[in-house]
Amino acid sequence: MTTSDALPSQPFPDAARDAVYQAIFSRRDVRSQFLPKTIPDDVLGRLLMAAHHAPSVGFMQPWNFLLIRSAETKARIQALFRKANDEARTQFKDERKDLYTRLKLEGILDAPINLCITCDRERTGQTVLGRTHMKEMDLYSTVCAVQNLWLAARAEGIGVGWVSIFHQHELKSALAIPENIVPIAYLCLGYVSEFLDRPELEKAGWLSRLPLEDLVFHDTWGQTGGEHDPLAETYETLRQQYGYA
Amino acid sequence: MTTSDALPSQPFPDAARDAVYQAIFSRRDVRSQFLPKTIPDDVLGRLLMAAHHAPSVGFMQPWNFLLIRSAETKARIQALFRKANDEARTQFKDERKDLYTRLKLEGILDAPINLCITCDRERTGQTVLGRTHMKEMDLYSTVCAVQNLWLAARAEGIGVGWVSIFHQHELKSALAIPENIVPIAYLCLGYVSEFLDRPELEKAGWLSRLPLEDLVFHDTWGQTGGEHDPLAETYETLRQQYGYA
Repeated sequence: MTTSDALPSQPFPDAARDAVYQAIFSRRDVRSQFLPKTIPDDVLGRLLMAAHHAPSVGFMQPWNFLLIRSAETKARIQALFRKANDEARTQFKDERKDLYTRLKLEGILDAPINLCITCDRERTGQTVLGRTHMKEMDLYSTVCAVQNLWLAARAEGIGVGWVSIFHQHELKSALAIPENIVPIAYLCLGYVSEFLDRPELEKAGWLSRLPLEDLVFHDTWGQTGGEHDPLAETYETLRQQYGYA
Repeated sequence: MTTSDALPSQPFPDAARDAVYQAIFSRRDVRSQFLPKTIPDDVLGRLLMAAHHAPSVGFMQPWNFLLIRSAETKARIQALFRKANDEARTQFKDERKDLYTRLKLEGILDAPINLCITCDRERTGQTVLGRTHMKEMDLYSTVCAVQNLWLAARAEGIGVGWVSIFHQHELKSALAIPENIVPIAYLCLGYVSEFLDRPELEKAGWLSRLPLEDLVFHDTWGQTGGEHDPLAETYETLRQQYGYA
């Protein structure tokens, strides 16, 4: 079945496979550990190429990558975050509000590069193969580009933080993003002093990791594997192998 | 700065880093190459754990994973696809319509496992850290889970195809997905005879890969690197190294 144009269909060698899992399991949303160290152009180029090779509905490749290095622009964006975050804080009560207030939720000024990844919903016209029924598919494609970049960055030793506490119209205005373009992710990128062993919100006691056993259903909604879940042993092995809680 | 709980902050060794890029650059949306070979439980467990370690807004982990192996359910889902695809075809004209008609856009029956990944928008209540202003963030988190699984699958030698040509309400009804849950991705999973060297829609002449140079802006919307783009050399190196067009 293999043609001359095909790639090998076998699994990666064990070490290569494990590297992919290591990137996935040790990726973190970074806010506090950025170092003021320049990201070389070849590294940045690889990250962007990784994002550009995300799946996209109808191969429309709806993304753009707006790199922000200007201190002035970063300061403007951080001011928008602060305003929105003051609003956000009021939505939490009592101890949650206190904990929320103590959390650092962005590294906009600390990260050497900020990156806004956007979606052009009409890149290839109104009618898009695969988007005829699920209109959000191009937005989802752009999120896949974010995740590709995030994992590539982890392998490069670069931390990424996704800042989502903005009024969208203010973010668009500050970055002069055209009307028909949707900002999907505002990311902070930089080398880090460390990657935390577990997600920061988990360590801070905001929420706990859910047991995967409870989230996987078999053929019928709500039907978990129960006491004899055939996948449970694998989950346990992975928890031990990769050392997370 | 490193604490006893921290992970190393340096880049992965070259071979491990390259493995991550290999997964990213050789991942494909598979429709036609599925083999009727069982996916072992340990492999499936790893894929699901990879998905479960996606970033999620406010650490809400809004996803569920509905595994579908029942031939009857698959047949029901495929019938929904066929109906929607007949509608979709009429939206394209002339040569595009002919080409659309020739494309195989799903492998629902061929893939040993189908997987619907969903988003529970109220998993942790109405107010979610990081979702106070961008209400779509939990949907985007779930897409990150999809992409994690897709890349892990590539490393395992397993192909994944995302089928999006459905009426959402019909898909929900066929899978008895509760009202408050949003299906994000309907995926077909299986070992494959080959991974295509380039995306299937690119090979079929549907659309071409866009030059990354045109998609990256510097500090100002629309400001490309131009003739002296510092990133262009890296892009060219990557194109040669990974052998894509």
